[in-house]
Amino acid sequence: MKNFKYYAPTKVMFGKDTENKVADLVKEFGGTKVLLHYGGQSAEKSGLLGKVEASLQDAGIAYVKLGGVVPNPRVSKVREGIELCKQEGIDFLLAVGGGSVIDSCKAISSGRYFEGDVWDLYLKKAHATQYMPIGCILTIPAAGSEMSDGSVITNEEGWLKKDYCVDEFRCKFAIMNPEYTCTLPAWQTACGVTDMMMHTFERYFSVDDDMEVTDSIAEALLRTIMVEAHKVMKNPNDYDSRAQIMWAGSLAHNDLTGCGTTGDWATHNLEHELSGMFDVSHGAGLAALWGSWARYTRGENMNRFARFAVNVMGVPLMSQTTEELAEAGIQAMEAFFQSIGMPTNIHDLIGRDITDAEIEEMADKCSNGGTSTIGGLMELKRDDMVNIYKMAK
Amino acid sequence: MKNFKYYAPTKVMFGKDTENKVADLVKEFGGTKVLLHYGGQSAEKSGLLGKVEASLQDAGIAYVKLGGVVPNPRVSKVREGIELCKQEGIDFLLAVGGGSVIDSCKAISSGRYFEGDVWDLYLKKAHATQYMPIGCILTIPAAGSEMSDGSVITNEEGWLKKDYCVDEFRCKFAIMNPEYTCTLPAWQTACGVTDMMMHTFERYFSVDDDMEVTDSIAEALLRTIMVEAHKVMKNPNDYDSRAQIMWAGSLAHNDLTGCGTTGDWATHNLEHELSGMFDVSHGAGLAALWGSWARYTRGENMNRFARFAVNVMGVPLMSQTTEELAEAGIQAMEAFFQSIGMPTNIHDLIGRDITDAEIEEMADKCSNGGTSTIGGLMELKRDDMVNIYKMAK
Repeated sequence: MKNFKYYAPTKVMFGKDTENKVADLVKEFGGTKVLLHYGGQSAEKSGLLGKVEASLQDAGIAYVKLGGVVPNPRVSKVREGIELCKQEGIDFLLAVGGGSVIDSCKAISSGRYFEGDVWDLYLKKAHATQYMPIGCILTIPAAGSEMSDGSVITNEEGWLKKDYCVDEFRCKFAIMNPEYTCTLPAWQTACGVTDMMMHTFERYFSVDDDMEVTDSIAEALLRTIMVEAHKVMKNPNDYDSRAQIMWAGSLAHNDLTGCGTTGDWATHNLEHELSGMFDVSHGAGLAALWGSWARYTRGENMNRFARFAVNVMGVPLMSQTTEELAEAGIQAMEAFFQSIGMPTNIHDLIGRDITDAEIEEMADKCSNGGTSTIGGLMELKRDDMVNIYKMAK
Repeated sequence: MKNFKYYAPTKVMFGKDTENKVADLVKEFGGTKVLLHYGGQSAEKSGLLGKVEASLQDAGIAYVKLGGVVPNPRVSKVREGIELCKQEGIDFLLAVGGGSVIDSCKAISSGRYFEGDVWDLYLKKAHATQYMPIGCILTIPAAGSEMSDGSVITNEEGWLKKDYCVDEFRCKFAIMNPEYTCTLPAWQTACGVTDMMMHTFERYFSVDDDMEVTDSIAEALLRTIMVEAHKVMKNPNDYDSRAQIMWAGSLAHNDLTGCGTTGDWATHNLEHELSGMFDVSHGAGLAALWGSWARYTRGENMNRFARFAVNVMGVPLMSQTTEELAEAGIQAMEAFFQSIGMPTNIHDLIGRDITDAEIEEMADKCSNGGTSTIGGLMELKRDDMVNIYKMAK
């Protein structure tokens, strides 16, 4: 088993009415003036934003509102948030929403005390040394940002999508009330389910074969997510299934499923270019690419794909070859994606054929003009990226 | 799914040579003068203690040594540690050892600033409001104290064994190098394996049936622990299997396997009286009692015991009744305990028949003279405790 660090300090309050604890939690972690950061109208419509505002007011905690975070959150909004924090003397960031809002908060956190432009942190040109504390009330289970160390931001100038990961990005607290997820449309639910499964895949499909505890937990999570996903697709108001999915989403990305493994993350990197270029949902983009990535790279550890087929997808183990098993597992996974309405190729994702020029442009961006590689299971160069995008056409 | 809080803030550094990070970690969490707390000679013999001392010296961190912690750690040693911390102006507690040493550190942490006697905290007569930070280097995977909020201390006056649980008891960091566990004797390894399985059982055998994520993770952990336990019994120097067991021990008790469930903890409570009276190993005591507890209480949720039989113990599901399945699972579990050398009744544990008078005395202590009950799956009164002890004779 490879050495690892595991650090998931976020205090999770999970279940009905937990949003009522928000003011106490802000105080516990030293917040006296809050930036209340959110997306569009859903947080207002659901009544959650009003409830949070009332809680903060009752507790005598000052706050400033900044809404308008969009999916694939923009660096322009981050810069607006940083300025607001400086002007208003804000000392605590509270995200109300999904991964985009939390990621935007994280970016603001890193840029608040940084002397240069926040985007330079995401370009890894610099490293921030001081961060603002963040708490969140999660309303969309998907990105796992509520317990992760990462943030992904899109720069509209050139539609670049980049991540920045530091332990200081781990939320101080995460409030999760599954009731607020019952109104999520089927498409968004399915994108979320795909994203959390992919967070597990990126750690599970590894060159390492000696982290049985981690693997068995990953397999348990994957099986459970699939069962519960079908339940919420049938009955969107099934609280218990919504709760399973919500909690699974956090565990899929708080590093629990990566202890002792070499992460891959190639599918995520390839997808960032897709959603950067076409502004599609991250989860759907991942589903469109994963099968092609899997078929391209499985030779690096065919046994692991075979194990996945049997232990996760329930492929009966008979006298198949390892490669046959691996292929059966990939096909079963694609069938699951389709069963929840996800695309399994780029055409179905963007509604038209992608052009070779677009593929070349994405591969260029993803490889920084051919200068960098991605992937832990298999190191992918620019040409490999082009090949996978073409396989996924 | 029941509401829950999940808070596991301990920074884990896992793997070979991680003990070299100790000085940096003490500094990171603000330690300037350390109480180096440990047990007997094994920490010295293994060279670990010397390594830690050298690291602290090199980093210019002052420290005072206090060894001599015994299994079922005593309140007298705790009081000695508290006095030492006061005299020496110590601001950080570093445990080098297993659960007993960590629990002793936790007790010192709670008593350092408390005006009364530390034992009153364990009797729940008072609550401490200020605690010292704790870090640990784990050498025995078993108790899970390295990530838990609990501490169990034995008072030699009357041989009472009591626990005290607060979030402030969560270690700031936990260093885990499986290499130091390779020299553990088979008996101690088996006791540790039993303890970590029981930490999962106490949360898994619940009245609740709607926390699929948690259950599936618990089942995965249990299956993995059993497989890896047999591997280390055969080959004590199998680093990878030692690593699986070590990490499983932490996950079994950091509350991950209890998210959304009603804990039981009756077997632990019943066992504390056994090891309090006979000074036996906690893990062995648990193995001696569990089957009897399971048969006594399973009627409260027979389905769960049947599920355990199939999903964890691999009992083939044919046309058995639920009760037959439950019994088969319990028998398979007892067979596993025996396969790693654990007793499954009190006679095998203490080497003689237990007397009725001893049983009555244990039930008296466990029920506080008949005034309190234990158990989440089934509420056990004094008479129930006597019945279970007698079944386990």
